Amino acid sequence: MFSVTDPAIRSYILYSSILALKVLFMAVLTGRVRYGKKIFANEEDAKFVKGKLKLDDPDVERVRRAHLNDLENIPAFWILGALYLTTGPIAEFACVLFRWYTGCRIVHTFVYAVKPMPQPVRGIVYGISYLINCYMAIQIIWHYSGAL
Amino acid sequence: MFSVTDPAIRSYILYSSILALKVLFMAVLTGRVRYGKKIFANEEDAKFVKGKLKLDDPDVERVRRAHLNDLENIPAFWILGALYLTTGPIAEFACVLFRWYTGCRIVHTFVYAVKPMPQPVRGIVYGISYLINCYMAIQIIWHYSGAL
Amino acid sequence: MFSVTDPAIRSYILYSSILALKVLFMAVLTGRVRYGKKIFANEEDAKFVKGKLKLDDPDVERVRRAHLNDLENIPAFWILGALYLTTGPIAEFACVLFRWYTGCRIVHTFVYAVKPMPQPVRGIVYGISYLINCYMAIQIIWHYSGAL
Repeated sequence: MFSVTDPAIRSYILYSSILALKVLFMAVLTGRVRYGKKIFANEEDAKFVKGKLKLDDPDVERVRRAHLNDLENIPAFWILGALYLTTGPIAEFACVLFRWYTGCRIVHTFVYAVKPMPQPVRGIVYGISYLINCYMAIQIIWHYSGAL
Repeated sequence: MFSVTDPAIRSYILYSSILALKVLFMAVLTGRVRYGKKIFANEEDAKFVKGKLKLDDPDVERVRRAHLNDLENIPAFWILGALYLTTGPIAEFACVLFRWYTGCRIVHTFVYAVKPMPQPVRGIVYGISYLINCYMAIQIIWHYSGAL
Repeated sequence: MFSVTDPAIRSYILYSSILALKVLFMAVLTGRVRYGKKIFANEEDAKFVKGKLKLDDPDVERVRRAHLNDLENIPAFWILGALYLTTGPIAEFACVLFRWYTGCRIVHTFVYAVKPMPQPVRGIVYGISYLINCYMAIQIIWHYSGAL
């Protein structure tokens, strides 16, 4: 019934992996700021590179907020995207949702943690990705509501 | 072997999606407190709605702790619930676990972030959901221990 | 096509569950420090066990950083490991990746939150697990790049 030759499933797999790589990349962004300013959260890290201990640097905290926002939203996409495919959506439409979700989350990271921009840019891309997650959740709940 | 007509799988899909929607809802709760008190974590957000910058507001932090607690527990449920179904549990029992897990996590959010209540209410619902996750993890590890 | 008798799938299921149990165990580590020092993040918790309220205890924060680092990396492994198996890797090699990933994350927790050790121990085990995640992500993206 489910096959990796199905275009919607292939799209889900591809975009989920791109998002995972994007989440992993946040560690590079945090590291770049930490090493650039020589500011660390652990004594053993500060000692190792002769940096100093600081837990409230605004530049580090900004990247960490962007990272946390990913964790609040992207694992939900991973599960919802997979379960949404079991409700039998139109393949082209599912692909559009996955593509937009991923695009918005990449722009979100860029305007949040790479090059901060005035609102409402971040709000808009966050909102679109958020609504896509909610839409998929509601579709699944509706489709399987008999299992309550 | 696995089919979306299986009652335990339908139950897993339904409750996983309800939990995902619940996690997404935390952003609404945080936003409600932020906009109510006009307190923001980013300069561009504060500027946009003429609020102020503050990172340690106790009401915002409470909701964020509830949100983080979700991230510590619910993605683990998503993976454990799915893998647990591959161990061939009794369908009715699996459904009961999924239903209780979801119910406890919803109550957890309510008594943590919506209407704070004295302990041990939150401790009890947290504990039940925690033990369900542990139970499923141990069952799976036991079942597949030959693959170590 | 995919069967729970496949050795690579069995390995994925086993190690994913071990990692889930490890993530859940972080709550025990945090609780141990909190109860040991009688330091809590919520008023109702402090009242319940006659402890005090404190949000910046260095020992608690260290365990929480280790926990957050898990959330930044392990859910990505859960999704990437599963999707990587759909690209048809050599079973033995996939098992090695899963085993090393899990081993490194367990050592990471130990040297971060149980018995802090000088760098670069934590950096090395973190780096290996990080590269395994990146490797799987790139393999999947490469394999499904036609679905862009």
